[in-house]
Amino acid sequence: MSTHSIAVIAGDGIGKEVVPAAIECLERIASIHGLDLAFTFFDWGSDYYGRHGRMMPVDGIEQLAKHDAIFLGAVGSPEVPDTESLWGLLIPIRREFQQYINLRPVKTLDGVSSPLEAKNPIDILIVRENNEGEYSEVGGRMYRGLPHETAVQETIFTRLGVSRAAHFAAGLAASRQGRLTSATKSNGIIHTMPFWDEVVAETVRQYPGVSVTHELVDALAAHLVLKPWTLDVIVASNLLGDILSDLGSSVTGSIGLAPSANLNPEGDFPSLFEPVHGSAPDIAGKGLANPVGQIWSGAMMLEHLGHPRSRRAPAGRVRIGPSCRSRHPRRRRNLLHVRIHRSRPDLHQRPH
Amino acid sequence: MSTHSIAVIAGDGIGKEVVPAAIECLERIASIHGLDLAFTFFDWGSDYYGRHGRMMPVDGIEQLAKHDAIFLGAVGSPEVPDTESLWGLLIPIRREFQQYINLRPVKTLDGVSSPLEAKNPIDILIVRENNEGEYSEVGGRMYRGLPHETAVQETIFTRLGVSRAAHFAAGLAASRQGRLTSATKSNGIIHTMPFWDEVVAETVRQYPGVSVTHELVDALAAHLVLKPWTLDVIVASNLLGDILSDLGSSVTGSIGLAPSANLNPEGDFPSLFEPVHGSAPDIAGKGLANPVGQIWSGAMMLEHLGHPRSRRAPAGRVRIGPSCRSRHPRRRRNLLHVRIHRSRPDLHQRPH
Ligand SMILES: CC(C)[C@H](C(=O)O)[C@@H](O)C(=O)O
Ligand SMILES: CC(C)[C@H](C(=O)O)[C@@H](O)C(=O)O
Repeated sequence: MSTHSIAVIAGDGIGKEVVPAAIECLERIASIHGLDLAFTFFDWGSDYYGRHGRMMPVDGIEQLAKHDAIFLGAVGSPEVPDTESLWGLLIPIRREFQQYINLRPVKTLDGVSSPLEAKNPIDILIVRENNEGEYSEVGGRMYRGLPHETAVQETIFTRLGVSRAAHFAAGLAASRQGRLTSATKSNGIIHTMPFWDEVVAETVRQYPGVSVTHELVDALAAHLVLKPWTLDVIVASNLLGDILSDLGSSVTGSIGLAPSANLNPEGDFPSLFEPVHGSAPDIAGKGLANPVGQIWSGAMMLEHLGHPRSRRAPAGRVRIGPSCRSRHPRRRRNLLHVRIHRSRPDLHQRPH
Repeated sequence: MSTHSIAVIAGDGIGKEVVPAAIECLERIASIHGLDLAFTFFDWGSDYYGRHGRMMPVDGIEQLAKHDAIFLGAVGSPEVPDTESLWGLLIPIRREFQQYINLRPVKTLDGVSSPLEAKNPIDILIVRENNEGEYSEVGGRMYRGLPHETAVQETIFTRLGVSRAAHFAAGLAASRQGRLTSATKSNGIIHTMPFWDEVVAETVRQYPGVSVTHELVDALAAHLVLKPWTLDVIVASNLLGDILSDLGSSVTGSIGLAPSANLNPEGDFPSLFEPVHGSAPDIAGKGLANPVGQIWSGAMMLEHLGHPRSRRAPAGRVRIGPSCRSRHPRRRRNLLHVRIHRSRPDLHQRPH
């Protein structure tokens, strides 16, 4: 029996609702497929901040480091400034554990209606560089409040950082249609972008079946609206990937249902799995949150832990037992198939 | 009779086709309304670069400074690196003439079909800061080609730069529905963004009828796809505004038809008017380019020069004489109404 120890941080708002639903599913899948998933629950987040003045304990990173994966709901609350809640938990985890890939599938789900008129199926993987670039920690402000106040933010790209993101994306593309699109803005002034293009091009050359198109991010945003079904794998810098992935999931109509994986591909450190949606304080506690993004993130976690779509499962739709059903009466239905590629029309909500 | 001297740079590719079409319209409008538009034509661009090794003469900026406005087609050609063509012409003009506003209307046009299923009319003005931010000239690369190569780009915001963009946007919002949306990313790490938010908020407080919503750029990109008709005026930094404006015009279906104004609102220097589309070398010379973006940019130029929609024009659709008709046989029809708010279904093409 494979044993995996999983750190669970439900976090804030609807995180506390969608995480238990996803844990039920994971436990049921584990019992069907003979996996041993050992969950350790951490009550970190904004409530913890209220009591302790920090989002997680001083040794939070060390505690998490002992686990094989981290399963996160959402952090963020009206009571805690975003800069505290994110810098105090999500961002240090992404960095300390070198989760340099943020993988975000953008996929049409059966029964979830795209806002686009053309209903062609969309199936894109967005690979976002998750550790450097526009999100560097270098920067600050001077002359606060004075007429000549100035704020700076340093965007920093390293060859290591860009090439490992490009490697990951090219490897994924090789296992799919072999078409990689790299988001750039090298036609203008931004000094880092020609470097990004060069490193991506050099890296992709090592993957014979993969071709790369360098697409200006403004044109690529339009492309995602006009012909998203022509895209296969996208690789983008931290900020551009953040924008493009929200845009992509809005185009499939499933922004509240999208999953993400913050990966340390080498497995030197635990990876983190979380839905793209936030803590949605406006609907928290009302039984309205849709757990599909969390459940789908759980599927990505199992895949990362070495358990992709099972061969042992019966073909077609797999009926998952009652423990995997929502306790919410209007949703007493099966929540997912084994690969969690589809949701039901009635599950289409936008918690964010 | 008002006299205006206008510097015309048709530039490259389809710029050479759409500019003459727009000049015909401008001349016809001038003759109807008693304006004296004196055009001076400059053959600058990539061909000029081929002959002289630069996009415009050394004293190009001084030559342009004598004019009341600049009417640009497009620059960019496969023969000249983008960094040369843009840094050699468009970017120095934007900066030397302190064109710190890039104004981009995003508007549904009659007969141009949006890719969205919901056909609600869209009418947004995007105010993009055009001189600083992510497009600062500060940055570079070190250790070229070595494993530890690093590239940096400094994002720099000044109180002057942010507040004048916010003033312009708030002023526009006051003349419309009073709803300003400011694109931000202050929930994360980016040091410049809380500063952007503060300066925007302080500025908007001076406009009693205007309210501002600070929307995270990832969520705003999704908003532009899911409910663009709920947006009025958007203010955004240089890079975010670049992405959002292409996204916006793709959502209206009119990316090849969108105009833009690079404004020096004080009128200390000439402003520049150009369509959002590029030089489109793939369709250049084929008579396929749609001149509506250029003509619409001309309408914005007349407005900036003090000639908004004329009261003297007959109500309703104004038939413009034959000189304003396209020479392309398939398009021998009237091209525009006086305010150029509508195009014809058959004009819907995407030159970019
Ligand atoms: C060509 C490029 C530098 C330019 C920009 O990003 O400003 C263009 O995309 C635009 O929007 O005018
Ligand atoms: C909360 C924020 C810092 C974060 C990001 O931009 O990385 C979020 O938008 C995301 O996409 O995970």
